This record gives sequence, structure tokens and C-alpha cells, in this order.
Amino acid sequence: MGLFDTFFYAPDSEFLFSDEQVIENFTRFEIALAKAQASQSIIPLEAANVIGQVEVSLIDIEKLKNDLSLSGNLAIPFVKQLTSLIKHTDHEASKFVHLGATSQDLIDTATCLQIKAFGHLLLNKLTILEHLLKALTTKHRLSPMIGRTLLQQAKPITFGFKTAGWLEAILLAKTRIKQGLQEVLILKLGGAVGAGNQFVTEQVKLEMATELGLKCTAGAWTQGRFAEWACILGVLSGNLGKMAKDIQLLMQTEVAEVSEGSAIGKGGSSTMPHKRNPVTSTAIIANANRIPNLVATMLMAIPQEHERSAGLWHSEWETLTQIMRLVAGSVEKSIALIVDLEVDTQRMLFNLEQTKGLIYAESVMFELAKTMGKAAAHEYVEKACQMAIQQDKHLKEVLADKKLDNALFEPINAIGNSLAIIDQICKDSGNEFEKK
Amino acid sequence: MGLFDTFFYAPDSEFLFSDEQVIENFTRFEIALAKAQASQSIIPLEAANVIGQVEVSLIDIEKLKNDLSLSGNLAIPFVKQLTSLIKHTDHEASKFVHLGATSQDLIDTATCLQIKAFGHLLLNKLTILEHLLKALTTKHRLSPMIGRTLLQQAKPITFGFKTAGWLEAILLAKTRIKQGLQEVLILKLGGAVGAGNQFVTEQVKLEMATELGLKCTAGAWTQGRFAEWACILGVLSGNLGKMAKDIQLLMQTEVAEVSEGSAIGKGGSSTMPHKRNPVTSTAIIANANRIPNLVATMLMAIPQEHERSAGLWHSEWETLTQIMRLVAGSVEKSIALIVDLEVDTQRMLFNLEQTKGLIYAESVMFELAKTMGKAAAHEYVEKACQMAIQQDKHLKEVLADKKLDNALFEPINAIGNSLAIIDQICKDSGNEFEKK
Amino acid sequence: MGLFDTFFYAPDSEFLFSDEQVIENFTRFEIALAKAQASQSIIPLEAANVIGQVEVSLIDIEKLKNDLSLSGNLAIPFVKQLTSLIKHTDHEASKFVHLGATSQDLIDTATCLQIKAFGHLLLNKLTILEHLLKALTTKHRLSPMIGRTLLQQAKPITFGFKTAGWLEAILLAKTRIKQGLQEVLILKLGGAVGAGNQFVTEQVKLEMATELGLKCTAGAWTQGRFAEWACILGVLSGNLGKMAKDIQLLMQTEVAEVSEGSAIGKGGSSTMPHKRNPVTSTAIIANANRIPNLVATMLMAIPQEHERSAGLWHSEWETLTQIMRLVAGSVEKSIALIVDLEVDTQRMLFNLEQTKGLIYAESVMFELAKTMGKAAAHEYVEKACQMAIQQDKHLKEVLADKKLDNALFEPINAIGNSLAIIDQICKDSGNEFEKK
Amino acid sequence: MGLFDTFFYAPDSEFLFSDEQVIENFTRFEIALAKAQASQSIIPLEAANVIGQVEVSLIDIEKLKNDLSLSGNLAIPFVKQLTSLIKHTDHEASKFVHLGATSQDLIDTATCLQIKAFGHLLLNKLTILEHLLKALTTKHRLSPMIGRTLLQQAKPITFGFKTAGWLEAILLAKTRIKQGLQEVLILKLGGAVGAGNQFVTEQVKLEMATELGLKCTAGAWTQGRFAEWACILGVLSGNLGKMAKDIQLLMQTEVAEVSEGSAIGKGGSSTMPHKRNPVTSTAIIANANRIPNLVATMLMAIPQEHERSAGLWHSEWETLTQIMRLVAGSVEKSIALIVDLEVDTQRMLFNLEQTKGLIYAESVMFELAKTMGKAAAHEYVEKACQMAIQQDKHLKEVLADKKLDNALFEPINAIGNSLAIIDQICKDSGNEFEKK
Repeated sequence: MGLFDTFFYAPDSEFLFSDEQVIENFTRFEIALAKAQASQSIIPLEAANVIGQVEVSLIDIEKLKNDLSLSGNLAIPFVKQLTSLIKHTDHEASKFVHLGATSQDLIDTATCLQIKAFGHLLLNKLTILEHLLKALTTKHRLSPMIGRTLLQQAKPITFGFKTAGWLEAILLAKTRIKQGLQEVLILKLGGAVGAGNQFVTEQVKLEMATELGLKCTAGAWTQGRFAEWACILGVLSGNLGKMAKDIQLLMQTEVAEVSEGSAIGKGGSSTMPHKRNPVTSTAIIANANRIPNLVATMLMAIPQEHERSAGLWHSEWETLTQIMRLVAGSVEKSIALIVDLEVDTQRMLFNLEQTKGLIYAESVMFELAKTMGKAAAHEYVEKACQMAIQQDKHLKEVLADKKLDNALFEPINAIGNSLAIIDQICKDSGNEFEKK
Repeated sequence: MGLFDTFFYAPDSEFLFSDEQVIENFTRFEIALAKAQASQSIIPLEAANVIGQVEVSLIDIEKLKNDLSLSGNLAIPFVKQLTSLIKHTDHEASKFVHLGATSQDLIDTATCLQIKAFGHLLLNKLTILEHLLKALTTKHRLSPMIGRTLLQQAKPITFGFKTAGWLEAILLAKTRIKQGLQEVLILKLGGAVGAGNQFVTEQVKLEMATELGLKCTAGAWTQGRFAEWACILGVLSGNLGKMAKDIQLLMQTEVAEVSEGSAIGKGGSSTMPHKRNPVTSTAIIANANRIPNLVATMLMAIPQEHERSAGLWHSEWETLTQIMRLVAGSVEKSIALIVDLEVDTQRMLFNLEQTKGLIYAESVMFELAKTMGKAAAHEYVEKACQMAIQQDKHLKEVLADKKLDNALFEPINAIGNSLAIIDQICKDSGNEFEKK
Repeated sequence: MGLFDTFFYAPDSEFLFSDEQVIENFTRFEIALAKAQASQSIIPLEAANVIGQVEVSLIDIEKLKNDLSLSGNLAIPFVKQLTSLIKHTDHEASKFVHLGATSQDLIDTATCLQIKAFGHLLLNKLTILEHLLKALTTKHRLSPMIGRTLLQQAKPITFGFKTAGWLEAILLAKTRIKQGLQEVLILKLGGAVGAGNQFVTEQVKLEMATELGLKCTAGAWTQGRFAEWACILGVLSGNLGKMAKDIQLLMQTEVAEVSEGSAIGKGGSSTMPHKRNPVTSTAIIANANRIPNLVATMLMAIPQEHERSAGLWHSEWETLTQIMRLVAGSVEKSIALIVDLEVDTQRMLFNLEQTKGLIYAESVMFELAKTMGKAAAHEYVEKACQMAIQQDKHLKEVLADKKLDNALFEPINAIGNSLAIIDQICKDSGNEFEKK
Repeated sequence: MGLFDTFFYAPDSEFLFSDEQVIENFTRFEIALAKAQASQSIIPLEAANVIGQVEVSLIDIEKLKNDLSLSGNLAIPFVKQLTSLIKHTDHEASKFVHLGATSQDLIDTATCLQIKAFGHLLLNKLTILEHLLKALTTKHRLSPMIGRTLLQQAKPITFGFKTAGWLEAILLAKTRIKQGLQEVLILKLGGAVGAGNQFVTEQVKLEMATELGLKCTAGAWTQGRFAEWACILGVLSGNLGKMAKDIQLLMQTEVAEVSEGSAIGKGGSSTMPHKRNPVTSTAIIANANRIPNLVATMLMAIPQEHERSAGLWHSEWETLTQIMRLVAGSVEKSIALIVDLEVDTQRMLFNLEQTKGLIYAESVMFELAKTMGKAAAHEYVEKACQMAIQQDKHLKEVLADKKLDNALFEPINAIGNSLAIIDQICKDSGNEFEKK
């Protein structure tokens, strides 16, 4: 386990990125290739069967890593070891390993298999997060709190309205991930320069793609499809970062409207025994500060030279893996954050009164605008607000002579269309699987 | 005109990002809002009519710019000026300007209108580029050249195969832009904190969206949709950069297979009268080195605080505009690059012989593998290649005793499935409008 | 004036980046080159004199911009126009314009002249900011406030301690800028491939560098020196962003310890007449979200091909200018922010009591640790804090039986070494000009 | 060992970033703190002695990693384990562990200790690289080759001139790293909010800093010093990338002037037995595409909230480590690249003739300019060049009637001041240790 695995990453997803899983995906590629070639009578069926039964655990991973330094990619020493393993069983079959394929075919397709498994796991995690956010939204549909813009108290909303915004972003992410998987899960099989050859025919591609649950495109390689996938994860990370940042701001001592769930030893400070620091949200925000620049590297890697790059392609390997691992961590942490979130609706009500009614200025202005016009009402209310501030009075008092309805100063009457928006998003959540 | 407008940007698209056009889009927002509110009897129809006839050219843009320093966004002084203009015509109507809307509604919707016009123009430009690339591909379907990987000669392809790869990226970009426009062109109308109010109802939103040719979502604002749009443009820029880089590499004095079209004064050096420098491709590559990091800024701007950010939102404004302007430039330059591209098929044939047959090693190996198995054939051919190099002989000679068919050493027989791939991509190009 | 010039940029620095100033710097290069060459008898003194009197205002900048599209850089059409202008005066002299120099010599040296003027202006602005921060620090040396970590109240500091931290960053920036100017202000004069020639000798370089107030290095061009300059500005922008973010957080309605100065029309909201939004700090934070990625582009531009890049060099031009313009804006806005900053020391005292003494837990713990040991004291105080929270009592009450000195609960006694640190930084500020 | 350690990283530097080394650095902090506090009679000397003899290997690192998830940083569980270990030996001493310090003190100082060891190792590696490049430069001081700008043949240089440019960048990097270490190696010791306390006095800081070989500053923490260090490494990475890119371009089949050293199994292709792919340079270029964006993350992490950030600080941890590990890899690979570089001076001479004398156009032009003036000579030579191209003649032939000296067409006479520049850089290399 890496030093920071439990903090920035999702320990239960790490196996997808393990050395063993990489080798497993490599092996799946070679087996599917042989099988597809056998189905087209390009290689003997017996050879494909032998290849299909190779004992992947016999691959010496440490040797692979050492050989990488000279080979420049993992495919070359892997194919060498695989061929050698098969030769032990069946000398003839070993002649048909990796036939007509090139290193990038193997490596990029294995990455697709990794993405596929990761995408499945990510969607499951996001569905959990979706359900948690939907429940939280439903629970706090009518819990008034202040809406804040530019870090200033603005107008009332409900806490459910805020969480519905977070939920909407998760719904969007799920849609994008599903769309994205359709576009990124593409068999790479082009041979030396991407143009195929007699062993790597259109038919072999189709058979092999079906076997691996991938799609085919005409051209062999990228066009930035891995970068597109990285972009989707980058947007998701940003939205999780938004949720975490909102929570951190609401957790501030002076605001105190929500709090990360407490646990023994959680969020303690080594020097301040009383503190309950944000911990889970902190990890999400840290990841959100790292992922956009990793996405930039993926975009920078698109302009590859000729039929295969000497460096840009290689810069994608660890970067894409890093993005996926960090995003898995952010989603995992988001689940932990929401499942344990403590909400103090009393404090929300208390904070709504901190401006002594100034947050109702817009409602009042709209009310007065009906008779005075918007500009005049704006000016009038602005003066009233200044007076309220100067005299430290409640806005209601200052405007006493306008005989305004008291209900204008009740938060639940000042939440605009919050409830309709909440309901729409919750409905979208229910329908999300039916939607395209 | 900015100092570098003719080099990095597309002069014919710059008007979309002009001060005047920004004000025009702002005005369209306010007119559509008033119209929608009138249709719902929220404001008088007369007022909407007066607002609809405002003379936008009377807006004092220089004053706007000066006021921005205090207001913090352009919407506030714009609404002030607009209201004042309308007040001159009709005092009553002026009360109904911008009713219930907030600055971000205006600014972000205006950005959507800008994106819409830009997207239309971009698709048109890309269609021109598509047609040029398709014609180039068709012309050079059978022009053999060497395929290169890791900057080394690898195996033959045709030039049409290479350009088909560029074409495929453009087809993908068009699809993504169409999809992206569906997702990004969303009316922003949420009022102060995004929750709407009595003037900004669901019905007003729908009417107004229809009027402006935009869509509605439940929540008012982002969830990173502008960042998603930036990502699409980032991938496109990368793929144009790939094309430009290929061309620059092929233009090298020692390769000389293609050349940017010449024009009087083009690509001249101030000290080397003989040089014909790449100019057009240079601009595309420069842009491709800038755009990914601008996209990163858009992604970094997603985690906005509460209901509106104090800074991250603002960092999007110029950044998104810059991305669009640069991408327009890259597409414009790509058209110029392809329309004038000079292709030297003789030189391509000449270069194919530079390795004295070594590039046919794979074909030979595959041929020998039929009888020797892949591993043995690999080893055998590797030795033959070394001998050819050491003795400075043609591979054909070294392998003379294998009595290989001469056709194995003809480039057109060594291009794998290049033609089928070309034909598929050209067919996709034809069908592209029918496709989803 | 650009649309956002008064918001993100410093209007009083914009002239440094104007078209006219670029041409002015270009002209200074050519005049200094001719003068240096004349001093070495490489060209006639008369020619140098004629070149030295060229009327730069006659350069047709619009034509330059148009020609750029074909020339690929501004130097080529500029030299053409300049030569033509001089030819009108003195046909013979025109033969000696730009002799032996190349476009990159001209462009990159002109950038150095721009950086030099900018650096001077930036240091002046930073000195103003330094004095303002020093005055603010001195004024609030003894104004207690809560220190916050991880957005939670932690332990008392003084406001002067916080501002001293901001000041320290400005002192560091000034040192770095001075060091950086020493390293970046280097005459570029290498001729076609950087190796010089008979017109561009070591002696010419030395004369010309002296004339322009630049240094020489052995090699002609980059090694990333512009990127180094960008990095220095990137760090400065980050530190200004830190100051702006602190202020925004302290301005929150619920915290209200400081406020941006008010002005008519400043920070108003179009829908909430009572709001006083952060405006100045918002611009600084927006810039801080953009600059790091522009710096990344400068770093990405370092690995240039051979003796001059076809694209990476070009990507530096607008990027470096943009970084300087944005940083000038951030410094300008920081001055405006600090000069008008309103500080509410009463509210600071009020907020210090919000945790009912919990912020003194460390002081108490340290006091108790003297007798109980750190671990036991930590545990004991942790329990006391929990009890205080559960029973909603002041920590003082809960610990009543420990008979602690009341002074332990006075903020000014809990500020650690704040004052010594403040004094040291203020002293460093005074000595800053003497320091290297 | 990580999957890609032998490719992107320097296996012999990895131990600096191992879990064990992190714990070792943590322990050094605590021992030095106790020792410094004992020297000031703040804690008993006996306690400091006991702490100084703690058996660090007893720390349960796996438990640390697990606890991180709740604690949010490694310092908290580390201090807990350390205290517990010491309690086993001496209950009294355990009360004085980590007294007055905070997590960031421990973590950031440990990072400084890591940087210190890394900087030392990096400088050693760079010195090796410097010597290799100096030797290569000396060897090829007089080996003519073509200089290339914008990927076009321009004018002759020598290979030693090119490598002197690489060497100059290494000299610069060494200077910067030494300067950078002076600025980054700063003891962090501020206690809870950075203001110190009775256990963390100025005197304790000074003693402890001396013990650890670090410096002190007035303020406790960042001001972006880690980001500055990252920037220095970013520039170095760019310059190594430039060297690697030059080599890759020179290795192209059609250029073939240099080649990575061959080794059994190195650079082989899985499908093209004849290929000798760049491998070592590929890793350097891949790293150069990743590091700038990691630097951007470090810059983005500067604007930290209040006295300690909840997320930005955390985003630095793995990012800074990653930058150092990748840079160590790039330097290691650069050494391997240069030590084995094969240079084909014959091919360089051959390539110099590819333009049939056009590369001497500038020399000719300068010669003619003596009599005709620059503009006329430029025009005349331009026409001659066009004629040479059209008639496929050598420029010498076309200009026969000008009776130019044949020596004008010898490369060694057209290298400008290459040799003087080489000699200056080699001299700087010798003097580098004396220079500031």
C-alpha cells in the first residue's frame, strides 16, 4: 500500500491498477487475439487454445520491470516472457503469440480493459453517492438556510436546494461516464504502423472486439480518446471539489451549519485537542487541485508524431492511471462525507437572522417594485438597508411604515422556486437510468 | 486588431468576441427576458416592446469598461445604462428591465449565445477542412510513403492513410462539437442565488430559452458545462496540432515529402534567403501548446464556493474566450495549410528506399513466420538486418537464398489494410451528417 | 482598452505592452545594433547615425499585423519597413539595417526591454504595497484575532501577525524579482543559428548589451530564462491570491472581521441592494487561478527543437505578456485592497469568544503538561473540551477546579511569539534594500 | 518497485522517497526538536536523550497508513506511535515528544530534509552529466553539422556548439539548484498557528535549524518556497527535454547523425526487428510533458486559507515528490543517453551537402552585402537560390560569375563564432564551482 492510499485514493479500487491486473489485462489481449485469429483460420485453433490456457501467474513481474528500462515499453518483455512460457508447453503454439500486433495495440487495449472495469466500479460508487444525496436532499427539502454568493449572505434557499445542486452534478457525471465509456472503449489493433496486416484484418478486429467487449473504429489509435476520458473525470473531480468546498465553508467555526461526521481519532489536531478538522473533504479538495493539471498533460499528449510518438504516448501511461485512482478516491471520500454529514438546521435558522433582515431586501424590493418600479425600489431599499446597518436595526423596523406583510421576512417564503428545482432534480435522479 | 490576430487567430471570427457583440448578446438576453415575462403577464407587454426596441448602439462601452473596476462584472453597469436608455424613451418600461435576473444569468447566457454563434461558424470551417482532407486523402490513396514510429522509419503506408487519420479526427471533432453544443447551450436564469423567484419562473425560463434557441436545466448554473466545452476544443486543438506536427516533420529538409504552400513573402527568413520555413503549421502548434493549460484553468474553476464564486467564475471569462479564439485560429490555419499543401510523391518513393529494404523486415518476417514461427523468424530477420547494415547491402540481397518474392519489397504490397481503412473513413465522412 | 482591462489588469502598465511600445523596443534594438557595429567599424558611423534617427512613428503597424500572417513573426515585416523608411532618407545607410541579426534576436531582446521596464514598474508597485502592509502590520500589531487552520478556529494571533505574513511574501517577491531581472535581462544576439557571424561578434554583443542595459551570456538564446521569470511572477501571484483569499474569508457575513473599502457603486449586487461584495480581491483570485497554467505553458515551451523551434517559441509570446499584464493587475488590485481595507477589531474580539474558551485549550494543555506530561494533558483537556461542548459551558468553568490563572484565557496572552515575528519581518522590510 | 520505476525514475534515488525514509526524516525532526528544547532547558536533558535513542524501525508503517484516513496527515499517528514507543522505555520522557510543534512543522520540515538529500544527489548526478557533456563538446568542437531552425536546414554549426548549448543549460541548472537549496531548506517550526509558543521559541528554532542543517525565517511556513523549488526542477526538466528532443530528431532515419547507444534488447520493436528506437530520450521527453503541469499544481497550491489550508497544502505532498522523482529519472536517463551516444560525423558532412550549397546563402549574402548593401544582396541571393533550386544546380555554380572564394562553401568557415562560444561555455564549466 502506498503511503497515502487511504487518504487520496480508494483502497477498494486500487487492485484495478495493480501490477497483477495490468498483466492480467495484457494476457486477455493476447488470448483474445489468438482466439480471433484462430476463428479466421489465420492461426491453428490448437495454438489459440494453448495460448488461452497460459498460466499468467508465472510471469515474472520484477523481471518485466527491469527489462522495461531497455525495451521502452512493457509489451516487449511481456510478449517475450509469454512466448517463452507457452514454448514450454507447446513449441508450435508459441510461434503464434502476438502475431501481427504491436506494442501499442497491447498496451492501449489493456488500458481500455482497465478503464472498462474502472468505469463499472465508478458508476456503482456514483450510484451510491446519488442515492445518498437524494436522501439528504429529500430530508432537507424544507430546511431553510442562507444562500451565499461571493462569500456573502445573499438570499434564503433550503439546504435541500444546495444538495440538489450537488446531486445534479452527479447525475450529469453518470451520464457523461456512460457516454464516455461508449467512446473510449475501443480495441486498438493496428500492427506496426496502425494500418493492419494479414494477421490483423478487419475481421480479426471485429471478432476480438466482441470477445473483449470493446468497439472498433476505422483508424487504429487515439485521436485523443483517452484525453476525452480524462476530461470527463476532470469535470467530475471539479464537481466533487465544489461539494467538498461548500461543506468546508459551512463547517467553519463561525458558520457551523454542517460538520463532517465524527469518529474516534478523526480530525483531531496534534496541538489543539478541541478541534474537529475537516479531513474527508480535505482529501477531495486536494485531489481537485491536482487532477486538472493531469488532464492538461493528457491534452498535451495528443499531438503525437507520425504513426506513434516517442514520448508523448509514454507520458499518458501513469498520468491516466493517476487520474483514475484519484477520482476513485474522491468519489469514495464523497460517499464517506455525505453518509456521515451532520446538519445543524437550528444553526442555519440562527445564521439567517445575522443580517437582521437584510437578506430579505430583494423580496422587499420586488414587493415594492410592483408599485415603485425596479429602479426606484432598488434605491429605496438600498437606503433602508444602509439605515438599518447604521442604526443597527432590523430591516423590518426600518421599513415599518411600508406596512409590509410579516411573511416577507420568513425564510421559507423567500426561497424562490427552490422546491420545484429540487423536485425536478430528484425526479431526474429517479429517471436517470431510462434517460439516454 | 490585436498584434498577433492574423497569426494565432481567425480574423473572420474575431467579431464574435468583439465588445460590440458582447453588448449585443447582453441586449438579446434582456429583450428575451422581458418578452418571456410579458408572455406570462409578469410585466406589461408595452414595457417588453419598448425594451425590445432599445438602440443598443447607444451603450457607452468605454464607460462600461471603466465602471467594471468597481462593479466587478459587466452586467451591473450594463443594466444601469440600459435602464437609463429606456427611461429616456419610456419611464414606466424602465422599471421592468432585468427584473428578477442576476448578473451571472446575463453574463453566462450571453456566453452561451457567443458559443452558439461560434459553434456554428466552427462547424462550417471544420466542414471545409473535412472536404479538403477527404479530397487530399482520395488523391493520395495510393501514394506510398514510409510510416514512422518513434521517429524511425517503420513500414510503408500511403499518404492517404496518414491524411485519413487526420480526417478521422476532424469527423470526431464535428461529432463532439454537435454533442457539446447540445449540452452547453443552456439558458442561465436563476436570479440572486439560482433558485428563481416570482419574476423568474419555470415558465419564463422555458419561453426565454425557446426565444434564444437554448435549453433549460433544473438547476441554474454550471456543473462545469463551460469546462466540458473547453475540453472538446482542447481535444480538437490537439488533433490539429498532430496534423501540423506531422507536416512540419515531413517538411524537414532531410525528409522533404510535403511542404507548406509558398507565397510571396511567406516563410522567408530575415537572414537566410533560401529558407521556406513552416509558418502556418507553426501557428497551429503554438496554439496547441497553449490551449491545454487554458482548459486546465477552466477545470480548476469548477469548485466554486456556495451559490456563486468570488474569483473562480471570473477566471472563466477571458479564458474561455481565449480558447475559442485560438481554436478558430487553428482551424483557419489548418484550412490554409491543407488547401496549399504541396506533396512530393517522388520524394516519398525515394525515402522508402533509404533503409535498403529494412522497412520490409516485418513483411519478410511474417512471410518466414509462416514456416519458422514468429520467434524464430523474428530472430532470423533481426540477424539478416544486422548483416545488411554491417555490409551496407539491400535486405533483398542478404536474404537472396530465401528466394523471396520480389513483390514483398514493393511498398504498395506492404501497406497492410491501409486502403480499407481509408475507404471506411471517407465513407464515414460522407455519412457524417446522417450519423447521430 | 480591452473589455476587462480595469478589472484584471493595471491600466497604468498597459502601455508597456502596447503595439507602439513593441515597435519602440524593436527600434531600440536596431539602433543599438547599428551603433555597436559602427563602434567596431563593422558598418559606417554615418549609417548608424541615420539609423539612430529613424522616425519610428512612421512604421505602419496595421500593415505589420497583416504581413505577420505570411512572415510568421513580426521581425521580418518590421525590418522590411524600417529598411524602407531609412532608404528614403539615405539609400546607403539602409544596407546596414539589422545586419547579421535574426528575427529571434530582435523579438527576444525586445521582450527583455519590455521585461526591464515592467520589472522596474513592478518593483515600484510592490514597494508601495510593502509600505502599506508594513503600516497595517504596525497598526494591528496588538489587535488580537483568532488564527484559523483547516478553516477552523485554532489559537489566537494578532491581525498584525497575519498581515506580517502577507508582508513577508512581498519582501520575498521583491528579492526574487531583483534576482530574476539579473538573470532574465540578457541580450539575445546570435544571428541565424545562434552562433554569431562577422557582423555579430562578441565585441558587438558587449557594446550593444551595455547600450541597452542588458547582460551577455555565451550562448545566444533561451535555456528557459523567460520561463524562470514567469515562475517568479507565478509565485508572486500565488501569494497575492493567498492575501486576497484570506480577506474574502474574513469578509464573510458570519466572520465580518475585515471588509474591502466601500465606494459608490462598488460591490453592489444587481438584485441584492444590501450586499457589499468583494470586488478587488475577486480579481486577484481570478488571476491567481489563471497564471499558474500560463506558467506551465512557458515551461512546456522549453524543449525547443534544434537551434529554433517551430511553434514552442511562438507560444511564449502572448503567454509571457499575459502573465506580466495579469500580475501587474494583481499587484495594482492588492494596493487598492490594502489601502482601503476596513478592519473591525471589535468583531475580532467577539469572534474570539465564539468557542467559549476552547481556543485556549492548547495554552491550558501546555500549562497542565508542565505537571501532567503532554499525553495526559492532551487527554485531560480533550475531555474537558468535550464536556464544555456537551454542557455548553465555557472551558474556564469546566476547568474551574484546576484553579488556572485567568490570564490564560486572555487572547493577548495566547499569541505565542507573534510580536517577535512581526517585529522581525518589519525589520526585514526596513533592511530590504540593503539585503542582496 | 513500481511498474515504471526503471523507465521514468532513477532507481538509485527512489530510497529517498521510501516510506522508511519518510519515517526516518520524521524521527530526525522529533529528536532535533527535543535536543534543542533540552538545550534551552525547556525539557529535561534525560528526556531528550531517551527520545534521541528511539528505535525508529519499531514504527508500524502499515498502521500509520491506515490511521491516515482519519487523521488527515501522517504526523498525528506518527507522533502517537512515537510517544507510545518512548513510553515503553521511559514514561516520563514520553511527555516531551513533539512538544509545542504541529503536524505541518513535522511534515514540511521532513520534506526539507528529503529535498536536502535529493538536492545533494541531484547535484552529483548533474556534475557527472556536466563532465560527460563537456567531454562530448570538446571532442566535437570541430565536427561540422548543419544548424536547423524551424526544422529546416539553416547554416552550419559544429556538433560541439550544439552540445555546448546543452551543457550551458546544465551549468545554469546547477547554479539554480544551489541557489534554490539556500532558499528552500528552511526549518518549519511554528506550532499550532505558526506563531510559536513557550516550547517553540526563537532560540529553539535556531538550535534545531543548526542541528538539521536548515535555515530559519521569521514566518513559519510557505510563501511558495516549495513551489519555487518545483519551478527550478521544471526548468531543468525542460532543458533535458530539449536535449532529448534534439537527439530524437537527429536520430531520425533520414537524418541519422546521432544514435542512442545500442544494447542487447534495447529499442527493439516487437514487430520490426530492424528498428533501433529511441528509448532513453523517450523517457526524458515523457517526463518533460508531465512535469510542467505538476509545477502548475504547486503554484495553484500557494493561495492557502488562513494559517493552514484544508486541501491545498495536502495537494503538495505527492506532487512535489513526484516532480523530484521524475527529475531524478530524467537526469539519470540523460547520463545514460550521453555516455552511450553514437555520433556519425560523416553523415553530418553528407547532410551539409543536401541543399547543394543553399545553406551558405547567408555567408554569400554577407560577402556580397559588403559591396551591394544588405537589401540588394538579400534579393540577389534569393534569386540565385531560386535558380539553383529550379535548375537543380549547386549554388556555387549559379553564382560562378561572382567569382566567390571556394572557402565560402566550406562548412567550417561558416560556423560563425561557434568555437568562441564553445570555449566560453567550457571555461564556465570549469569555473562553475567558483561562481556564485
